[in-house]
Amino acid sequence: MKATAKAHTNIALIKYWGKRDESLILPMNNSLSLTLDGFYTTTTVTFKEKLSEDIFYLNDHLITGEQYNRVTKFLDIIRSYAQRSNLYAEVSSINHVPTAAGFASSASGFAALAAAATRALNMQISEQELSKITRRGSGSACRSIYGGFVEWEQGMKDDGSDSYAVQLVSNDHWDVRVAAVVLSATEKKVSSREGMKRTVDTSPFYTSWVNSIPNDLTQIKQAIQDRDFEKVGQIAEANCLKMHATTLGANPPFTYWHDTTMSVMQEVRAMRDRGVPAFFTIDAGPNVKVLYLPEHETTVQKTLREIHGVNDVIVSRSGQGITYL
Amino acid sequence: MKATAKAHTNIALIKYWGKRDESLILPMNNSLSLTLDGFYTTTTVTFKEKLSEDIFYLNDHLITGEQYNRVTKFLDIIRSYAQRSNLYAEVSSINHVPTAAGFASSASGFAALAAAATRALNMQISEQELSKITRRGSGSACRSIYGGFVEWEQGMKDDGSDSYAVQLVSNDHWDVRVAAVVLSATEKKVSSREGMKRTVDTSPFYTSWVNSIPNDLTQIKQAIQDRDFEKVGQIAEANCLKMHATTLGANPPFTYWHDTTMSVMQEVRAMRDRGVPAFFTIDAGPNVKVLYLPEHETTVQKTLREIHGVNDVIVSRSGQGITYL
Repeated sequence: MKATAKAHTNIALIKYWGKRDESLILPMNNSLSLTLDGFYTTTTVTFKEKLSEDIFYLNDHLITGEQYNRVTKFLDIIRSYAQRSNLYAEVSSINHVPTAAGFASSASGFAALAAAATRALNMQISEQELSKITRRGSGSACRSIYGGFVEWEQGMKDDGSDSYAVQLVSNDHWDVRVAAVVLSATEKKVSSREGMKRTVDTSPFYTSWVNSIPNDLTQIKQAIQDRDFEKVGQIAEANCLKMHATTLGANPPFTYWHDTTMSVMQEVRAMRDRGVPAFFTIDAGPNVKVLYLPEHETTVQKTLREIHGVNDVIVSRSGQGITYL
Repeated sequence: MKATAKAHTNIALIKYWGKRDESLILPMNNSLSLTLDGFYTTTTVTFKEKLSEDIFYLNDHLITGEQYNRVTKFLDIIRSYAQRSNLYAEVSSINHVPTAAGFASSASGFAALAAAATRALNMQISEQELSKITRRGSGSACRSIYGGFVEWEQGMKDDGSDSYAVQLVSNDHWDVRVAAVVLSATEKKVSSREGMKRTVDTSPFYTSWVNSIPNDLTQIKQAIQDRDFEKVGQIAEANCLKMHATTLGANPPFTYWHDTTMSVMQEVRAMRDRGVPAFFTIDAGPNVKVLYLPEHETTVQKTLREIHGVNDVIVSRSGQGITYL
């Protein structure tokens, strides 16, 4: 009744932005990500007959409140699935995702938790089934079950049974690098959950965003197969800009960008003008992730570190999916 | 055969963004502006029988090339209108619109030129007719014929005969101030003409932008009548963000914003959080214009001047329409 799993976070190149079902976490569009080796969560789950409630440690600290509630509600889903409704767990997670890096640790966190909990209960499930369960904890986490390039298929069914991630190519298909650019100013006034909802409900641009996804996906999937870096980068960067455009049309309008976010975008464009193929993508926060190829690692890192307002640059390679320890 | 006219520039609160006819300069949507007293052009036009071509002085310098061609082509339109096709003019313009302020001097420039040229030819035309002629030189210039708050009615006809500006309220209706925030970095890679066209042709957000305008206009016109500053500011700021969102969806995507543009937007939002009602608007360039009420002039000016990367802050009040000197 004890298991330990490790999951990496992932960066979306075609963004997940908006839910069609808030409760089941069903998205409005397919998304596509790269799993990153630099950021991960290791989680041990031990189910114990004598416990009367779950216990959750994060980085060796006992967690209560909202963060605890989210974990225990997710364990309820797994318990219900396993028909073990009165069995509680001790959960211990170690996060190797610096919050300041602007990666949602929820992706690696819920993927590792789902994997460890289902394994601890000795549930015999496929990775696809695991991805579906993980989705209920955090949408983008369902992509972290797999390594390399991964697509989350939105699915059509109301019960979410066809909404899960699939691996497109494994992490050894292509050595693409991602630099996470950590900014000094990381204040975020609108959570990604709230931002998505406000955008879906009020932005006149939202429908056009959703309608533009299938073409982006078709193109980027071909470019990934072809290892066409310029094309992957261009599609990812344009997709990110479209996503952020939708927030500017919301009511009230909002943006996740800071002045330094803009400085990094400018500098990435300037690198391209100087012949260094680098492309940016930005999630629901001010930090920027920069895609590049191994041969440009020195240049890209140096250039990014010199930008005023940049605190740190953390490099990742294409990472693996779930591993059990 | 000689006349001198003075025209002010204007700032759009509901943006003109996209043409339905490139040649006649017919817009895709109505726009609404405030004429500004701080920036103007004074132009003297003298038609002379003995001239075999137009001569154009700008700030006492003889102008040739593209700028000259635009002026002489516009004079051709006026000549054709007046049926005086072989009469050429000496044009002398003084621009009180610092280029660095990021205002298109074409608005005040073509309004003053149209007014002076038609007066020099002794054409008996209404202000409405003058606005229509002015539009052929530069779209937004047609709004500078009038003072105060002005609406450019897009019109429906193919020949443009119903596309002209109308005054909503004169400049003494309401003392609203506009601070033009001049940035150090003013590089602009995409002209407004090219930016409009690329957006109309390729942005999936463009149709939603156009469809959102009638509601913005209805609301802001009521708010102007009511002198409801918060409402005018909110609508104007949201409209500006929507316009800039459309460029992020273009192919290839682009933005007029720089890092300092973002700094100024952040600082304006921060002023509001501190209880100072101030709102921004941005045209097709990096500079920002900030709307505020007279009682907050000291605070707003001081705050804007202290932003890193801001070179100058130039204050305007609501200005008059065309005057003849």
